[in-house]
Amino acid sequence: MLTDDFHVFDTTLRDGAQREGISYSVGDKLAVARLLDTLGVGFIEGGWPGAVPKDTEFFARAADGELKLEHATLVAFGSTRKAGVGVAVDAQVRALLDSRASVVTLVAKSDVWHVERALRTSLEENLAMVSDTVSFLVGEGRRVFLDCEHFFDGYAHDRDYGVRVLEAAQEAGADVGVLCDTNGGMLPMGIAEIVAEVRSRVGIRLGIHTQDDTGCAVANTLAAVSAGVTHVQGTANGYGERAGNANIFSVIGGLVFKMGLDVLPAGTIGESQRVAHAIAEIANLAPDTHAPYVGSSAFAHKAGLHASAIKMGPELYNHMSPELVGNSQKILITEMAGRASVELKSAELGVDVTGRPEVVSSVVERVKEREAGGWSYEAADASFELLVRDELAGGSFSAPFELESYRAIVDRREDGTVVTEATVKVHADGRRVISTAEGNGPVNALDRALRQALGDVYPRLAEFELTDFKVRILPGKHGTDAVTRVLIETADAAGDWTTVGVHPNIIEASWLALADAVRFGLLPPSA
Amino acid sequence: MLTDDFHVFDTTLRDGAQREGISYSVGDKLAVARLLDTLGVGFIEGGWPGAVPKDTEFFARAADGELKLEHATLVAFGSTRKAGVGVAVDAQVRALLDSRASVVTLVAKSDVWHVERALRTSLEENLAMVSDTVSFLVGEGRRVFLDCEHFFDGYAHDRDYGVRVLEAAQEAGADVGVLCDTNGGMLPMGIAEIVAEVRSRVGIRLGIHTQDDTGCAVANTLAAVSAGVTHVQGTANGYGERAGNANIFSVIGGLVFKMGLDVLPAGTIGESQRVAHAIAEIANLAPDTHAPYVGSSAFAHKAGLHASAIKMGPELYNHMSPELVGNSQKILITEMAGRASVELKSAELGVDVTGRPEVVSSVVERVKEREAGGWSYEAADASFELLVRDELAGGSFSAPFELESYRAIVDRREDGTVVTEATVKVHADGRRVISTAEGNGPVNALDRALRQALGDVYPRLAEFELTDFKVRILPGKHGTDAVTRVLIETADAAGDWTTVGVHPNIIEASWLALADAVRFGLLPPSA
Repeated sequence: MLTDDFHVFDTTLRDGAQREGISYSVGDKLAVARLLDTLGVGFIEGGWPGAVPKDTEFFARAADGELKLEHATLVAFGSTRKAGVGVAVDAQVRALLDSRASVVTLVAKSDVWHVERALRTSLEENLAMVSDTVSFLVGEGRRVFLDCEHFFDGYAHDRDYGVRVLEAAQEAGADVGVLCDTNGGMLPMGIAEIVAEVRSRVGIRLGIHTQDDTGCAVANTLAAVSAGVTHVQGTANGYGERAGNANIFSVIGGLVFKMGLDVLPAGTIGESQRVAHAIAEIANLAPDTHAPYVGSSAFAHKAGLHASAIKMGPELYNHMSPELVGNSQKILITEMAGRASVELKSAELGVDVTGRPEVVSSVVERVKEREAGGWSYEAADASFELLVRDELAGGSFSAPFELESYRAIVDRREDGTVVTEATVKVHADGRRVISTAEGNGPVNALDRALRQALGDVYPRLAEFELTDFKVRILPGKHGTDAVTRVLIETADAAGDWTTVGVHPNIIEASWLALADAVRFGLLPPSA
Repeated sequence: MLTDDFHVFDTTLRDGAQREGISYSVGDKLAVARLLDTLGVGFIEGGWPGAVPKDTEFFARAADGELKLEHATLVAFGSTRKAGVGVAVDAQVRALLDSRASVVTLVAKSDVWHVERALRTSLEENLAMVSDTVSFLVGEGRRVFLDCEHFFDGYAHDRDYGVRVLEAAQEAGADVGVLCDTNGGMLPMGIAEIVAEVRSRVGIRLGIHTQDDTGCAVANTLAAVSAGVTHVQGTANGYGERAGNANIFSVIGGLVFKMGLDVLPAGTIGESQRVAHAIAEIANLAPDTHAPYVGSSAFAHKAGLHASAIKMGPELYNHMSPELVGNSQKILITEMAGRASVELKSAELGVDVTGRPEVVSSVVERVKEREAGGWSYEAADASFELLVRDELAGGSFSAPFELESYRAIVDRREDGTVVTEATVKVHADGRRVISTAEGNGPVNALDRALRQALGDVYPRLAEFELTDFKVRILPGKHGTDAVTRVLIETADAAGDWTTVGVHPNIIEASWLALADAVRFGLLPPSA
């Protein structure tokens, strides 16, 4: 267990849920909280009990034993009491007690403009609201943090008022005053300056909450820490309203690897990539492949020429070792592919080509030949792996099926309806199968017909889902026709994989990528 | 025209093209350069002539008149001469001259580890390589900027060597020494400190190039500017290797709106969102909806308790006015959906809608409705112009033909040959024509069948060439199926135009874009 010296405070489930399109079930919230606990954050802000019914239920189920946390403390979020209302009878404040969370974050206005124009109360009443609510909750045995909303904008309007809010909170017993850049318009230089000024004026421990509207949320958080803040708020993958919140994985990466602060329990930071991707899945959003530290491309190198240099000295080309955050280095196989990159890439995919120089040579040859014809393996690891396995098996690597022929028909009728059907004839498991299916397009129809044909032999096919389909027309070279390159991403419960097909005909290019997708997905786990 | 006091230097087409999955055609590169020029950047680094054949062709076509820039200067990128080779006979250096670019960025090693372990030459020879290559190019009348690769890592290894590289460059006549955080591991505090130290030691003007591996690329760039740098490098949408480069839209936003520096020509910053999205389309990547400043959700507020407050005092809830970057506050409303932008865009296309407020209203309505269904006019001016002309003509704008029906068949035979044919039935010039054609794919076959059917009536069709075809699958909304968006670029001797089609079926989406391409191409010149 960590000491209380530094707080990593996650608000994925509260502020992060403000992102357009995110809608967690209570079960989702419990799963996200467990993942964040695995990462080792100190605090998990779970929601706003009393204001959001799902959040009320979440806290009830968590308190009733559905959420066992090893590292983190669960936090309930709420507002200071209403203007002109006694704190003990404020229903929203009572709901915070009812949530049974031992820590409460209260949001308070700290900008005179917001007090007067949005809250429409007096500056003194707002201070009393802070003071009353903090005292009441502390009196009930709760630990209280105060989120000072619009603190930085407020500092520009009246640099004393925010300080008075912090003083009121401290006097009433709050533990942390969190300076929030709610509108997200700050840069790190301004953050560092204001944090330093505020620190010199108040005694309460300070925290930071940033939004990414200038693209500086992570840097703003780190700048606040170097100015003396010891409580940082962020969300998984930077989810949040508008441009999002500070990405907690990047904040943690900066604190641990760049600033040398041990803000997580020993051994948990290696869970970063897994937690980041799993939360994306639960939020039903594609993980950002280019996210710092945890993106699947965060350590990807396209430099074919430099692959041999990277092989010899990865520390020359990576800002840190990717394994520290559970990530790995990725070599992109491009036109310039040499032996070194084929070896590195194969090792990365778990295919052993050591001691097989002739296999490496023929893979290099085939890749060069195919790339000259428009193929690209850069984004199609699965097709590349199949190619290496084919070469390793001397061309006799077994395929799960053989195609005899297919036909796809798209019919746009006089009434405007469009009907598509495809027929495939395949051989699998010693049988010849003819299968016809309709689809919302020719590739979809072919995909359905193929799965239908193979479904009896390979029931696992039912779990595969075609999740992305990209098409690119490549201009012809030296007087040849243009070719079409199709990339298909397929997923099942265990992960996703990308395959490529290239042909002058878009349907045949799609077919080649589809066939590879099925072949790859059906590889035995030990292959 | 801006003065030379501050350089906004874009490297979308060079370093940005290192992003996994990006592969621009030469036509794409020309289109991206034109968009960047519209935004008003000072320099556009177009690629590495001599090293990448497509880049050589890009510079040749640009110099031969295909790229007319209003604001920007085109820059060629290359390396210092090889170790032990005379600069005048170094093929790669000669290719820089042959590119006819007036400005050259040279990349040089500035980290002793890289000189000794990657380049494998002596520290003195590396300085001579910088000196020789800069002198040679300056002697040939070129303006030279020097990218000091791995400068910050190098500063940690030997804080004098990078300074010696900068001194060598300045003595040889280079104008700017760009400090590159090539591995992207820096934070703004370290950047500001090192930039200030280096500034106190050298006389050469300094620039900054950052990568986003800590999630701080934008902040690092802005921190360097506040420490005295007057040349910033970035890429559209932050595209680049690994976690990407500094996003030029965020950098410009920070410089202009947060630091008060007028780094763009008057009036161009409002193009930010349009340029950001159009470049994403060309790169065939979905625009990041949550990008600072330019993302469609960057000023989106989840409708709730504060909706009326936001309406009354938007300045309380937005860090700036979204219109300044061509963005808008409302969710799901894109840049094209406002009256003013429809008027501006129509004027730009040469369609007069002044004094026709009802036409503008109905265009706004149709665009909103179609964009909700997945259409995007950001990269499809020709389809947008047809839509405006349709509305101007009150729905009676004459079409050159009417479709009755079509059918496309793709047959992959047992011997592996793929045969495609399409039949279209159309009405044109009072006649009904049935035409069947083969093609190398269904869209090509439909295109041929349509041209064949209409060739007698419209001989100009023979000159049209389908030059690009892009496909994107858009995830379904509200439980509907996914839809396919097709962008088609068509060219004739007079120019090129892009049209869009959206439908669940890729063939029908392609047909809609094809039909618009033919309609647009056949518009009378005075239309």
